Amino acid sequence: MYSLYYSPGAASLVVHWLLIELGVPHELRLVDTQAKQQKSAEYLALNPNGVVPTLIDGGTPLYEAAALVLHLADRHADAGFAPQPGDAQRGAYLQWMLNLANTLQSPLRLWWYPQDIDESLADAVRDGARRKIEATWDRLDAHLAANGPYLLGERLSAADFYLAMLMRWTRSMPRPGHEWPHLAALAQRMKARPSFRTLYEREGLTEWA
Amino acid sequence: MYSLYYSPGAASLVVHWLLIELGVPHELRLVDTQAKQQKSAEYLALNPNGVVPTLIDGGTPLYEAAALVLHLADRHADAGFAPQPGDAQRGAYLQWMLNLANTLQSPLRLWWYPQDIDESLADAVRDGARRKIEATWDRLDAHLAANGPYLLGERLSAADFYLAMLMRWTRSMPRPGHEWPHLAALAQRMKARPSFRTLYEREGLTEWA
Ligand SMILES: N[C@@H](CCC(=O)N[C@@H](CS)C(=O)NCC(=O)O)C(=O)O
Ligand SMILES: N[C@@H](CCC(=O)N[C@@H](CS)C(=O)NCC(=O)O)C(=O)O
Repeated sequence: MYSLYYSPGAASLVVHWLLIELGVPHELRLVDTQAKQQKSAEYLALNPNGVVPTLIDGGTPLYEAAALVLHLADRHADAGFAPQPGDAQRGAYLQWMLNLANTLQSPLRLWWYPQDIDESLADAVRDGARRKIEATWDRLDAHLAANGPYLLGERLSAADFYLAMLMRWTRSMPRPGHEWPHLAALAQRMKARPSFRTLYEREGLTEWA
Repeated sequence: MYSLYYSPGAASLVVHWLLIELGVPHELRLVDTQAKQQKSAEYLALNPNGVVPTLIDGGTPLYEAAALVLHLADRHADAGFAPQPGDAQRGAYLQWMLNLANTLQSPLRLWWYPQDIDESLADAVRDGARRKIEATWDRLDAHLAANGPYLLGERLSAADFYLAMLMRWTRSMPRPGHEWPHLAALAQRMKARPSFRTLYEREGLTEWA
């Protein structure tokens, strides 16, 4: 049994989505981020970074959304969401997971939390983050155009769920990820999965449906 | 045979270090970052992000330093640098790899390249990045104090090599990572490995020896 500390639409979303897809027993524990519960002593004892998600796996708290994705996809390898070590696509799979973490999730964090750098420079920080994010969409769209429809070609992987979540986070940006045509096609495929509807119902989400 | 595109002391260092530790055949290809070779059409065809490292593995170019570490450590699992799927420490290993990528490598990139956000705000960007980095050192030092000497306790893993490289990058910051006592002890252990001397000789490094 897994327990997932989550907040609707946050970085926990991809972990929740995978738990649904994998069909493994799990329970959800809501973290009220408005009330700053993620900074409470109780939560910091689980995750000293003070952010969601945290996944409790056999009593052990684990964090970092992308790490949880990698972990769950390998742990339940039968579902086929991660090329396993020895598979010719294993390296590319890891590359995309880390590339999304570095070139999308990091600047997206600055877009949403410019105070991580400097509250009084929020506009400039957002501009810089936006440039990085749009350059990444250019690069990913070109990759999908040549090698899609998924990041690993014909093969769906956990990295596509992560990409869809990150695309969702740009929905209110001046140029959201889904304005790039091959990214839009990937978003459509991911949203068409039955698990997406379950996820939205359980998290109470409506935007970007 | 692996080929590693590298620049001395850059993010390629941890990949080079692991190749030496693993004792696997590899060749080095120097990228002259002063001359901006990482932005040449030839290099961008291998790695459209225009950064080092890139590893050629069986003809396929792969990038993202942390992904290459994960990949090599799993590929050569006999060396014991990565708890394998099913091992109780697998989740923690992935957590630390991604936590280092997110909470150290990302802000360190901003410390070294504040122009990624805004050249004219370099000082403010550096200050913000420095706050994040120092908060991470506080957190990691507390973790090592309670659960060290390595990130996974008594067990050395690839994540410790990655951590040592990131610590090295802070050597000229106002408060380098090695000023935290348990991080200093980890740095000493990592530097004492024979592979570290080989690495320094091959990359022509002298600082932080
Ligand atoms: N690197 C972390 C980042 C997680 C993160 O930034 N979570 C946000 C929500 S999307 C959060 O908890 N924000 C509340 C806060 O920072 O106080 C991960 O991937 O798990
Ligand atoms: N996320 C990348 C970042 C690599 C990176 O920032 N490399 C730096 C050297 S440490 C680089 O190539 N800088 C040259 C440039 O940005 O033009 C990785 O981990 O491989």
